[in-house]
Amino acid sequence: MLSPVKKATHRLEPLLNPASIAIVGASNNAARIGGMPIAHLTKFGYQGVIYPINPKYDEVFGQRCYADIESLPEAPDLVVLAIAAADVTAMLRRCHAKGARAVLVYAAGFAEEGAKGKLLQDDMEAFVATTDMVVAGPNLMGFANLNGQVHTNFASVFNTSPMQPGSGTVSLLTQSGNVCAAVYAIARRLGVEFSHFINTGNEACVDLAQYLEYLAQDDGTEVCMGYIEELRDGKRFIAAAEEFARRDKLLILYKAGETEKGSEAVRSHTSALAGDQQIYSAAFKQLNIIQSNDFVQMAQLANLAQYRQRSAGKRVAIITISGALGAILADKFILQGLEVPTLPQALQDMLRAGIPDYGMVSNPVDVTGNVVNDPGFVRTAMEALAQSDAIDAVVVYAPGYMLDRMADDLCAVAEKFPRLFVAIDTGAAQKREQMRNGGVPVFEDIGVAISALSPFLLWQERRKHNRWLDVRQQPAPARTALPARLDEYSTKQLLVQHGMPAGAERVATTADEAAQAADAIGYPVVLKVLSADIAHKTEAGGVRLRLQSADDVRKAFNEVLASAARYDPKARIDGALICRMESGVAELIVGATRDPVFGMTLTVGLGGVLTELYKDVSHRVLPVDEAMAREMLGELKAYPLLTGYRGRALGDVDATCAAIAAFSRAVLALQEQADEVEVNPLLVKEQGQGVCMLDALVLPAAQTISNH
Amino acid sequence: MLSPVKKATHRLEPLLNPASIAIVGASNNAARIGGMPIAHLTKFGYQGVIYPINPKYDEVFGQRCYADIESLPEAPDLVVLAIAAADVTAMLRRCHAKGARAVLVYAAGFAEEGAKGKLLQDDMEAFVATTDMVVAGPNLMGFANLNGQVHTNFASVFNTSPMQPGSGTVSLLTQSGNVCAAVYAIARRLGVEFSHFINTGNEACVDLAQYLEYLAQDDGTEVCMGYIEELRDGKRFIAAAEEFARRDKLLILYKAGETEKGSEAVRSHTSALAGDQQIYSAAFKQLNIIQSNDFVQMAQLANLAQYRQRSAGKRVAIITISGALGAILADKFILQGLEVPTLPQALQDMLRAGIPDYGMVSNPVDVTGNVVNDPGFVRTAMEALAQSDAIDAVVVYAPGYMLDRMADDLCAVAEKFPRLFVAIDTGAAQKREQMRNGGVPVFEDIGVAISALSPFLLWQERRKHNRWLDVRQQPAPARTALPARLDEYSTKQLLVQHGMPAGAERVATTADEAAQAADAIGYPVVLKVLSADIAHKTEAGGVRLRLQSADDVRKAFNEVLASAARYDPKARIDGALICRMESGVAELIVGATRDPVFGMTLTVGLGGVLTELYKDVSHRVLPVDEAMAREMLGELKAYPLLTGYRGRALGDVDATCAAIAAFSRAVLALQEQADEVEVNPLLVKEQGQGVCMLDALVLPAAQTISNH
Repeated sequence: MLSPVKKATHRLEPLLNPASIAIVGASNNAARIGGMPIAHLTKFGYQGVIYPINPKYDEVFGQRCYADIESLPEAPDLVVLAIAAADVTAMLRRCHAKGARAVLVYAAGFAEEGAKGKLLQDDMEAFVATTDMVVAGPNLMGFANLNGQVHTNFASVFNTSPMQPGSGTVSLLTQSGNVCAAVYAIARRLGVEFSHFINTGNEACVDLAQYLEYLAQDDGTEVCMGYIEELRDGKRFIAAAEEFARRDKLLILYKAGETEKGSEAVRSHTSALAGDQQIYSAAFKQLNIIQSNDFVQMAQLANLAQYRQRSAGKRVAIITISGALGAILADKFILQGLEVPTLPQALQDMLRAGIPDYGMVSNPVDVTGNVVNDPGFVRTAMEALAQSDAIDAVVVYAPGYMLDRMADDLCAVAEKFPRLFVAIDTGAAQKREQMRNGGVPVFEDIGVAISALSPFLLWQERRKHNRWLDVRQQPAPARTALPARLDEYSTKQLLVQHGMPAGAERVATTADEAAQAADAIGYPVVLKVLSADIAHKTEAGGVRLRLQSADDVRKAFNEVLASAARYDPKARIDGALICRMESGVAELIVGATRDPVFGMTLTVGLGGVLTELYKDVSHRVLPVDEAMAREMLGELKAYPLLTGYRGRALGDVDATCAAIAAFSRAVLALQEQADEVEVNPLLVKEQGQGVCMLDALVLPAAQTISNH
Repeated sequence: MLSPVKKATHRLEPLLNPASIAIVGASNNAARIGGMPIAHLTKFGYQGVIYPINPKYDEVFGQRCYADIESLPEAPDLVVLAIAAADVTAMLRRCHAKGARAVLVYAAGFAEEGAKGKLLQDDMEAFVATTDMVVAGPNLMGFANLNGQVHTNFASVFNTSPMQPGSGTVSLLTQSGNVCAAVYAIARRLGVEFSHFINTGNEACVDLAQYLEYLAQDDGTEVCMGYIEELRDGKRFIAAAEEFARRDKLLILYKAGETEKGSEAVRSHTSALAGDQQIYSAAFKQLNIIQSNDFVQMAQLANLAQYRQRSAGKRVAIITISGALGAILADKFILQGLEVPTLPQALQDMLRAGIPDYGMVSNPVDVTGNVVNDPGFVRTAMEALAQSDAIDAVVVYAPGYMLDRMADDLCAVAEKFPRLFVAIDTGAAQKREQMRNGGVPVFEDIGVAISALSPFLLWQERRKHNRWLDVRQQPAPARTALPARLDEYSTKQLLVQHGMPAGAERVATTADEAAQAADAIGYPVVLKVLSADIAHKTEAGGVRLRLQSADDVRKAFNEVLASAARYDPKARIDGALICRMESGVAELIVGATRDPVFGMTLTVGLGGVLTELYKDVSHRVLPVDEAMAREMLGELKAYPLLTGYRGRALGDVDATCAAIAAFSRAVLALQEQADEVEVNPLLVKEQGQGVCMLDALVLPAAQTISNH
């Protein structure tokens, strides 16, 4: 019997770490799906019990073969079904009757194949729901738990890629078996050692988020690479990703469906809805998940992760033997969002003492080819770089033998100081392995180095202070009831309760009241028809701007109400809203919509048609605090309009951030009552003068609400 | 003596293909710069005569060593100077006296090292200008002509990378020796075989464009990879690149200085001005040069180029054994600007006959893992894809053994049909070499495949019809003289001569003339002060809009002239311009500025502050015809504003393109007289109603004009 690797008793334990495995449809042919898992189990040394089941055989791969599941001497932890789709549910009943704790279903021909398959899958799900069995699949390639050599897969990549010598700490979790195999093959070529190889298939009963939850808790997993077509349980996913962050594990995710064509192709082959790509990216960013849509980058990141306890961050010092390469590396890092700060003068002076005049000392540093022959200086320079608080990480470029000459010094410095030093060698340095083992990762290509290092260093930077975990610790706002009539005034008042500023404004039900209101507010004013039934006030002739006197207001009141009544005779009109005519620096749109995966999400952008064309918006999953709001504003290409671009007035950025955080609280307080909340525009006034909602809208939840 | 490899007698022939090479400062130590070139020449089998020169030795690497250049038995074709900067010019005089045809100068310490080095370089250039010697460098690593094993380099990469067995067709031309070595090492690992390895150093007397001109004419060069920090002769560069296009050769260029930091770093190490990155990109695009800022991508492209005579283009069919991988590939190609068209129904039906229901037939095609076992079907399907006119190229993804099973069929189809088939294998297929030799390139990674294939297929597409070569064949417009007074009216009239439309407008010198003009034009009108001395008319109070009557016009005339006189008492005011008040769909800015490298360049964008922030502009080097203008408009993210975005009126795109082409002619006709010409705004009216210049400006050339 297999002694459990760890104490955790996650629900997926009998699936992923079973003490016994039965294979229904067992075969002696290692090329068949009923044979390959048994071949793997025996070849790679699974320590648990294997029960091949097939009435045609007495023995399979040296193991006694049983005629049927009922004949097994015990209830198996896990049953693998290598049988056709049509037979699956009946067999699940027999597995359940036998007392199996988990079942894995290979068969395709379920929901991914249209209406008929969908019925089969519905049947299967309905039965499983009546049990406490863990059922993986259908339509998958199986998994491998490489720390226990638990193989339930028919992945030939385990035959073609070299098997790792011992246990590993990197897990792979994908919604496609072929992607799982492709990434595994690439990562194994880099020497990455794996903990789990899991593909989730149709996720009828166990979805990706549940596996992720398991891996978050799994002591054997320190890094997880994932491939996602669609998340079925956003809440659980967020919780699992938070657990990764809390335990200081690295999560790297590929989200498929970058284009419409790609999304279509994903849908056709798994019946998944690809979801909103921008919201996925926003959520990943908030959760400090590295998003990577490149297999090699993922594998390189997983490999680099072994150095993740070295101190690092986004300020990079670049040391090269070539001015051109220094410039190239600086370009690349900066384009990826890192910083290449000019070194402090004292450090520059120290470097200049050992570097010829035609070299460079500011950063990038060009030590020139001669310097590699002066090991004393190299050591001194590296030690100084290891201790400077002006930088977070050091990247050294030198080809082949030049890197070899610096290798011992690099290793010595890496041993003495925690700072991350990275080497890039486009030649053929002999001491690569020595450096890697000595704490200095070595890349063989500039592009690959940049593509792995940049997100890794940004992850390191964000990991120092994970804002999302902070915000999530704050208590959720108490529920606010939606008012019965959602006109502009009541909507704004609802948001005002949570701290969102409105301008001076009053409701008037008669022309005289309107004039009084305007007198009280001060001219000029804006008059708008007040009706929960009229969404497009301007189209309805329901808005008048720049009214300068009580008479103008009276006249406007009568005209606007008449016009609105003509526009929609059935609308209930409650009067007019009189508002101070405000002016400011810029108008933003701040909106929340319900994403089917992640629940209520926030969008901030500049108003207007060009912003739409340029897609210049920033998204976040709620809650959003002031610091996150500032980050969102900073992501807008139009942000300089708030910060004095070309002599414009400065906008009140602090007040804008406070208002966005207030909006977040208001939306959360509405809970399931609203599907959409929008302030459009939010007027940003000059610095110190605050912001002001010019219009606001709530779309009540249509009907039954999911529990996202 | 070396028999010349080719007939061409380009000026650089004695440098790059010398029959004899003298090395001043020759050394017996292969690790020294005076030794390594001789070691390479002897080791790799140079067939010409080698003359080591050093009074300290009698023999160097088995060659007789001479005491000084004067002792040589003949005038050498090429002399390599492995001596210090301070001694170079004196030695150049001696080389010239001896009759040397070309000299190569290694020494650093010239213009790249500041004022003192600059003086040395000036001296050297001044002397060389009095001779017809070709002098390469200074500050370089030397070159290799691998088709004649001419080595003048101290590049250790020739010792560490395996030497190619025979001649090659790929040249490498860089402004950095280290970049040259790095790209060479990467490309050699892919098996790329080289023609020339050239780095240009400080380019005191021979610049990159001259080398490029040589390589364009060189029959041994079919592909050139280049690395550029700064071009010193844009005209010559354009002519050389045109020659590449005319001879159907592929040019791949890296332009350094993508960020300000990178540009600075480039400047500090070569004293080069990095120039405008956007203009470089525009010129490369016009000349159908592939711009690549990644060494691996460059090397992969050079490797892929051996398949460039296979028919290909931007419409890709994707064939995979995995729906997920199909979706991923479709995403990637589309993001890179390629098309993944839905296959014609007949082709889909044909595919469906052999593909299970859970596979996909529309494109991407998922043949499923089973199909590789049905070679008859694979062959039939591939032959159908080879002949479909709905696609241009076929990309096949299958890992390892699955690709092996299709390999014979792929090769057979590639032999029978000219269409490009490409394979991607993330596994470890055994038949990779067979496929490559059989006309089917094989990539080992998806990211690398996309990054090489996408620009390659776009190059193939543009190569079918090179618009730039067409436009350049058209005669240049005759010179138009600049009017003496460059006020708005004369500027517009200048542009009108070349076909740029202006609205109805008249000059008035009195208030009554203004009123008469307005009556004739029709109301409403715009009145603007007319003065070549007042650039900012609005600031000067010199513009009145929407004038509705003759009285309004008279009043406005007097006010505007008075205001302008107050604004600038010294300005000569010539009256006012009365224009019809035009309205339209959008306002563009169309401008030409003189780029220090490429000469007059055109910029088109939407007017306004957001366009600036979003950098939503398109650039081209002149001339630009209507078709190119259309391409420029299509590059604008704001283009949908002209094509009915969200129910807006359609703009007159045809008239806009005609106007841009007219603008191009006008700017070229001004030749060296103007440094900047701008129409801002150009009003685009509704479809069928044309366009109209609302304002225009010419900035006369400041002083002495270069001949760019």
